[in-house]
Amino acid sequence: MDTTTHTRLIASDRVEGTTVYNPDGEKIGSIESVMIDKLSGKVAYADMSFGGFLGMGDKHHPLPWSVLKYNTDMDGYVVNIDKDKLKNAPTFEADETPRWDDETWGKQVHSYYGAAPYWM
Amino acid sequence: MDTTTHTRLIASDRVEGTTVYNPDGEKIGSIESVMIDKLSGKVAYADMSFGGFLGMGDKHHPLPWSVLKYNTDMDGYVVNIDKDKLKNAPTFEADETPRWDDETWGKQVHSYYGAAPYWM
Repeated sequence: MDTTTHTRLIASDRVEGTTVYNPDGEKIGSIESVMIDKLSGKVAYADMSFGGFLGMGDKHHPLPWSVLKYNTDMDGYVVNIDKDKLKNAPTFEADETPRWDDETWGKQVHSYYGAAPYWM
Repeated sequence: MDTTTHTRLIASDRVEGTTVYNPDGEKIGSIESVMIDKLSGKVAYADMSFGGFLGMGDKHHPLPWSVLKYNTDMDGYVVNIDKDKLKNAPTFEADETPRWDDETWGKQVHSYYGAAPYWM
């Protein structure tokens, strides 16, 4: 679908809607939007929704941007996390605003995925 | 429209569609998408379309992300560029893929707006 993924830059509206897989190739969700840090201009998180995958309802998962690896063969992102670990990962409801600006919350999210906080 | 603009993070799908003004408060376009640098995770450009503003047809303007200043009163971004300068700014057609990966092109775009290249 997306010829621009082979280049250095990718458009936000191409990222939105892209499927996310676990290392076993199972769909774990799709990207709703990316969260941009206005101070540094860096992408901080991908907001991934499950849309009912794994029977998890319409939960949203904040994923540190750095843990998403694009896989051209799968035409989607792969996150190195197994299903059990994902079930306990930080989530928020679709109608809920997560604590994006709370540094403690941000550290917990990054730590859960073994990623360095985007602001460090 | 957007309560998240007062926080440190903003969602890409909130940026998309936001109006862009010049310093005189005139609408010069709206943001179609933001271009993300996959290597650094930084937002490189906003892709602004004119949608017929200023009689310029459906031209797209690549704007260095760093030149967009959000103005809460106007509920939009302000770019410090006058109309004459904007008319000669780098553009591409809606059905055209710009040379996002061409460093020479990128330098020209950033230089036109007096911005440091995002990769430096």
